[in-house]
Amino acid sequence: MVQIAIVYFSGSGHTHLMAEAVADGVRKVADTNVKLLRITGEQVNQGRWNDSDTLNQLENADAIVFGSPTYMGGIASQFKAFIDAASAAWFARKWKDKIAAGFTHSGSPSGDKQGTLLYLATNAAQHGMIWVGLGEMPNPDTGINRLGGFLGAMGNLTPNANQKEVMIEQSDRLTAESLGQRVAEATKRWNR
Amino acid sequence: MVQIAIVYFSGSGHTHLMAEAVADGVRKVADTNVKLLRITGEQVNQGRWNDSDTLNQLENADAIVFGSPTYMGGIASQFKAFIDAASAAWFARKWKDKIAAGFTHSGSPSGDKQGTLLYLATNAAQHGMIWVGLGEMPNPDTGINRLGGFLGAMGNLTPNANQKEVMIEQSDRLTAESLGQRVAEATKRWNR
Amino acid sequence: MVQIAIVYFSGSGHTHLMAEAVADGVRKVADTNVKLLRITGEQVNQGRWNDSDTLNQLENADAIVFGSPTYMGGIASQFKAFIDAASAAWFARKWKDKIAAGFTHSGSPSGDKQGTLLYLATNAAQHGMIWVGLGEMPNPDTGINRLGGFLGAMGNLTPNANQKEVMIEQSDRLTAESLGQRVAEATKRWNR
Amino acid sequence: MVQIAIVYFSGSGHTHLMAEAVADGVRKVADTNVKLLRITGEQVNQGRWNDSDTLNQLENADAIVFGSPTYMGGIASQFKAFIDAASAAWFARKWKDKIAAGFTHSGSPSGDKQGTLLYLATNAAQHGMIWVGLGEMPNPDTGINRLGGFLGAMGNLTPNANQKEVMIEQSDRLTAESLGQRVAEATKRWNR
Repeated sequence: MVQIAIVYFSGSGHTHLMAEAVADGVRKVADTNVKLLRITGEQVNQGRWNDSDTLNQLENADAIVFGSPTYMGGIASQFKAFIDAASAAWFARKWKDKIAAGFTHSGSPSGDKQGTLLYLATNAAQHGMIWVGLGEMPNPDTGINRLGGFLGAMGNLTPNANQKEVMIEQSDRLTAESLGQRVAEATKRWNR
Repeated sequence: MVQIAIVYFSGSGHTHLMAEAVADGVRKVADTNVKLLRITGEQVNQGRWNDSDTLNQLENADAIVFGSPTYMGGIASQFKAFIDAASAAWFARKWKDKIAAGFTHSGSPSGDKQGTLLYLATNAAQHGMIWVGLGEMPNPDTGINRLGGFLGAMGNLTPNANQKEVMIEQSDRLTAESLGQRVAEATKRWNR
Repeated sequence: MVQIAIVYFSGSGHTHLMAEAVADGVRKVADTNVKLLRITGEQVNQGRWNDSDTLNQLENADAIVFGSPTYMGGIASQFKAFIDAASAAWFARKWKDKIAAGFTHSGSPSGDKQGTLLYLATNAAQHGMIWVGLGEMPNPDTGINRLGGFLGAMGNLTPNANQKEVMIEQSDRLTAESLGQRVAEATKRWNR
Repeated sequence: MVQIAIVYFSGSGHTHLMAEAVADGVRKVADTNVKLLRITGEQVNQGRWNDSDTLNQLENADAIVFGSPTYMGGIASQFKAFIDAASAAWFARKWKDKIAAGFTHSGSPSGDKQGTLLYLATNAAQHGMIWVGLGEMPNPDTGINRLGGFLGAMGNLTPNANQKEVMIEQSDRLTAESLGQRVAEATKRWNR
């Protein structure tokens, strides 16, 4: 049984739906356990994030999938507050050799989302983690990876999206599921 | 009269059409002169690019707009061969304080195009150039910046594009024109 | 008289010293006014940064120089909280066509500082700002740009640095001053 | 027995010495076989790289380590010509799920080398490869990772380097060896 943690911040709720889709993808793989750990703004005060329970759960995970909306061309500050606080885990090399992956959501197709994934991969490398990208070519039939991002899963709202409720595109949901399944399989392979 | 040079490589022809649209944008601004300088694979032999006429024209320009398709997440090797050969201009600081900008085209909406623009901006910074981005918000009415890229102009083919002839989306043409116009205006302001 | 704002976060104090050096560089140029605006962790609560006075001063500036330590391969979360809050200025295009530049400090020579400057340039491009890099080659005599960063000014502590007091290398101080002077001259040229 | 291929370009010879050090690191690990595949400018004509033997060897490898000098803030054009030609392998997903890593060398400590490693990781992600970074903290005693790069191994010449013969710093040699050893161990773990 491998443990997959999905740690993410979501402002409007779209990245939360992406996180749930990643979790659904993990659950398709036998002998995996997935945990959704949502970072909130309430955890950030005086500029610092603090939640030892989340850090403990991440320390016990075999894989960590990082997710954040892309705000102003980068990860949300609330998520960076978590990452900065996790420098203690970095210093102690607690995440070294864990599997890592990432996903993001923003308003427009590019929306500088690649920069977000490049950053998440940089942070994972600082921790000595093993980065697993999406691994899927853009598939016009299923819509998986319709945006053509490779370092991780990307999603955005199409212009004709129903904005009355918080939702994500079905193709992006499948993309995120695909990432979750891939991470789960990679984590099992890495730890067998 | 300010001189704007557009130096670019195009494989399939899409980036060439983007370059022409950038030029059209420049031409909307009075007292500007625009030159299209196309890098070709034929200029690259034994791994080295060589064309002193192109380098001379760039040295005389007030602004250089760099364009390349995004191949495998980065600029085309043929264009990098030109950039590497221009290290002589870098060493002699010949492009210092010129205005710079960039554009790219690829198959999918993200297609890791942001990485291409980040690289073009990095190269311009090495030369000591002044980087002018797109400056336009995504506009659902005109289609300008529909992809949500900000460091420069991005284009890609929509799934229902007519593939029988080489073409670019009308929205991407307007985006590239917008960049050309902005660069022309910035170059005039910088050199008045 | 052009207004140059230096907005920055500093944790241990090194980036603060870099900011002061940038300001000293600005002051070398006649008819400039420079303001140091320090973002603090105390301004970030419930995950949100809020300081309307800082935003007002930035709106009135002709140039904004952004500075942050590089933490975990990216800008400090406290600084990102400021940037995210400034999305209101982004939406209203209040910083469009202002001059922008950046600087960063971290413990090691690379320390993934390029990623920080790439991000700051991305954010500036989202705002439609004009990016001015360092513009200086590495100079072994003065130590200016000893690290070989071009998108902005970089500093780090050399291994034999006196760690008892917060200080920055003399070469990095000169690098930051050089950036400040360059930004001031570019801002005057842009606004003459 | 796992097969590790090191594919690289070297202009002045420094990256070649880094490649040899990576190979030495691989050889420290039992049951591994390492091949050094050097891309040359002579293989690039009419702007295209072509060497089917190299591509065949890469297809048979369990891991590919990519190496290039950083020229003008990015990989050498000759190496990009190889990467662009390998888009055939990308399209056929021939490198999917192989282990990947990267290294680079340039004149100055930063020298925009992070951008090179970010690009190599982006390209690996396009192929669906699994990225293994350096995994080592900067160690002042051994000099391993003295530059503080994490996505891969970085090297540069210190100002007092003997420039009469092509050499690399001993600390950078150890850093590259460390990467080779880590890649070998990761490849065995991934394929056991």
